[in-house]
Amino acid sequence: MKIVIVGGGFGGLNAALALGRVKAEVTLIDRENYHLFQPLLYQVATGSLSPANICAPLRNVLKWRKNVSVLQGDVVGFDLREREVQLADRALPFDYLIVAAGMKHSYFGHDEWEPLAPGLKSIPEATEIRARVLGAFESAEWESDEARRERLLTFVVVGGGPTGVELAGTLADLARHTLRKEFRHIQTPAARVVLVDGQAQVLSNYPKELSIKAQESLERLGVEVHTGVMVTAVDRNGVTLSQDGKEQQIEAETVLWAAGVQASPLGKKLAEAAGPQVEVDRAGRTHVEPDLSLAGHPNVFVIGDLGHCDDGSGKPLPGVAPVAIQQGRHVAKLIRKRAFGKTLPAFRYRNFGSMATIGRAAAVADIGRLHFSGYLAWLAWLFVHLMALVRFENRVLVLLQWMWSYVTRGRSARLITTQPRAHPSPEPERP
Amino acid sequence: MKIVIVGGGFGGLNAALALGRVKAEVTLIDRENYHLFQPLLYQVATGSLSPANICAPLRNVLKWRKNVSVLQGDVVGFDLREREVQLADRALPFDYLIVAAGMKHSYFGHDEWEPLAPGLKSIPEATEIRARVLGAFESAEWESDEARRERLLTFVVVGGGPTGVELAGTLADLARHTLRKEFRHIQTPAARVVLVDGQAQVLSNYPKELSIKAQESLERLGVEVHTGVMVTAVDRNGVTLSQDGKEQQIEAETVLWAAGVQASPLGKKLAEAAGPQVEVDRAGRTHVEPDLSLAGHPNVFVIGDLGHCDDGSGKPLPGVAPVAIQQGRHVAKLIRKRAFGKTLPAFRYRNFGSMATIGRAAAVADIGRLHFSGYLAWLAWLFVHLMALVRFENRVLVLLQWMWSYVTRGRSARLITTQPRAHPSPEPERP
Repeated sequence: MKIVIVGGGFGGLNAALALGRVKAEVTLIDRENYHLFQPLLYQVATGSLSPANICAPLRNVLKWRKNVSVLQGDVVGFDLREREVQLADRALPFDYLIVAAGMKHSYFGHDEWEPLAPGLKSIPEATEIRARVLGAFESAEWESDEARRERLLTFVVVGGGPTGVELAGTLADLARHTLRKEFRHIQTPAARVVLVDGQAQVLSNYPKELSIKAQESLERLGVEVHTGVMVTAVDRNGVTLSQDGKEQQIEAETVLWAAGVQASPLGKKLAEAAGPQVEVDRAGRTHVEPDLSLAGHPNVFVIGDLGHCDDGSGKPLPGVAPVAIQQGRHVAKLIRKRAFGKTLPAFRYRNFGSMATIGRAAAVADIGRLHFSGYLAWLAWLFVHLMALVRFENRVLVLLQWMWSYVTRGRSARLITTQPRAHPSPEPERP
Repeated sequence: MKIVIVGGGFGGLNAALALGRVKAEVTLIDRENYHLFQPLLYQVATGSLSPANICAPLRNVLKWRKNVSVLQGDVVGFDLREREVQLADRALPFDYLIVAAGMKHSYFGHDEWEPLAPGLKSIPEATEIRARVLGAFESAEWESDEARRERLLTFVVVGGGPTGVELAGTLADLARHTLRKEFRHIQTPAARVVLVDGQAQVLSNYPKELSIKAQESLERLGVEVHTGVMVTAVDRNGVTLSQDGKEQQIEAETVLWAAGVQASPLGKKLAEAAGPQVEVDRAGRTHVEPDLSLAGHPNVFVIGDLGHCDDGSGKPLPGVAPVAIQQGRHVAKLIRKRAFGKTLPAFRYRNFGSMATIGRAAAVADIGRLHFSGYLAWLAWLFVHLMALVRFENRVLVLLQWMWSYVTRGRSARLITTQPRAHPSPEPERP
């Protein structure tokens, strides 16, 4: 029996782990050679952690699952009749297919904003953001024109979900503390960090009391929070915001995008291959049956962010790691059961709660009926995320690195290792 | 008084540190925002360490030297009459100038080999090599053609100096141990690691007994060592070697260059700006006076690899970190003395010995009359290099990471984070 898994994120990797030691040839395909622990990606973007701290080589994680092969490659399509996954240079046959290709950024029809306002989904994007943020401080230090200097020291984060809140909080901490004594000609604490969101509150998926707490924490860190605001333009000078019909321009060198996501294009390709009975939703996610398979294709499953799985009330399950992990394990179990002619009840998500962190020692936690915030929530956040990190080595090193950063407020991974793709500034004049 | 330092390597950084708290405005210019601990760069290239483990942000190292500014930028020329350093977008005036711009690779007139055989001098080059080496194993795992698979699993290192020896030893260890259980279709220990050198021995600058020991250690690790061999061609298929007039072709996907270095082009520019009394040698290094200044320009110094400083016997001092560090401190002290109308005796290099490591637990050490090799030399190497790492935090984390790697033979930083620049393979056929 051949099982092909597309995507080595939380869903795909957990399916592969659970299918280890099963009588089947399992192939896990990913574009990268590592699993990325995405919840800590903002720490790489802001120079606290190195990529290797939050990545684990897929082959290493699956080392002892002797029936699992890893293939680094790009899936380009599916043939569900022939039961083949198509890559650029080969086709892989399957008896079962699990697609877990995840989401990418959505610029709401403005793809031309992407080079101006990078998002945070991958390691190259994180190091790109790191280079832009640190490069802006480097340029500001030697900029003699005051207006340009202010523009260099303005950072706009678009999107007030967990990623936007984490980025804005960490940027403010970077400017106010870490970099404070390291520049001679500028005052880094004067840097402006602006968080804009279209909703009435940041963290709008959280209970209202926690959203308010989060906004208070951000403002205490020095972040300007603009809610109920739409971004109508992003260009080389910064962003244009619109609120109640009034437009406002914020001049900024660095704009970061944390506003929206859409499904991987593989979702649409899979739905097309499956036939008209399989639909995609507005975000491009593939609708799945209660057992996570595609309608009419009981051997094809979509899990994680890419799947639109009804939560029981007509809404899709959220695109978070615990959903993907539980779905990966569920599908693996279902495939094992089917080998013995058995089946499983429909997938049910067990929600253990959600947490978001804000800067150095604050967080909000929404765990069942328990809503709390502040230092205790931060400790809970820290504990959960460290325990979840895939490999023992990373866990210990990340903990040490954090303890050290926490005490010294230093960030050792502050390296500009990539040339920023687009450099929005005009060339400075010769003084 | 204004002092400009060009280059934040061992020489420039140590000059800047020693000029801290002096009554002078010091500006340190570097293309990067970090100091690189180059002796451990091969560990980044082979996935044992992360870039941040061996880099320290320059601003952070110089945080408490309030009179020292850091400028991230590219120096394009010098005007010694006007006493100005020229950057693309500005000019910096100086009273004293210290140039420590170092070396880059030399392909002996074959610059077209560079994209085919990257060298190891910078962080982007190290991550590039990492991507090529790991990518070759990834491709080999799924290559059905036997000849192509063998080519993918052949790694040629050109140059048997310390960098070449370290790279070859670590690659052999990677193939034979770290990756052994992680592939399903190939036997990684069968990978061929070939080290070629034009001299009669590897590590030809070391005492002969140590060179022989080093070669034995490499062969024990499974490295094929070819000495007395010239590389006559590098192309998409591999390398062509010539020995005693006979040519031999080695088919290899991955060729790494550790064969030669030449001075930064800034050396020649500086000599031209200084006038005909200042010469450059064949490697492009600038000849300096016994006090490390340029002839006729007592306020301009060249230190580190870029300078050609007579060792007293007519030969130049070697391009190693201890020379650069001692020269940086010497020039800083001389400038301080001159402020009081005093001077210093000529620079004299204190040679504490040299060491090179080979793979997992072997090294050779040449310390005065003491020549030793094996495990003890490796422990000495480890101790010296850890102690020399610039920052406390890095020291502890690198030690922990190494201890962990040593026990498990794991390499956690095995991430392919860049797209290899050139991909020499023809597209594999569809199976």
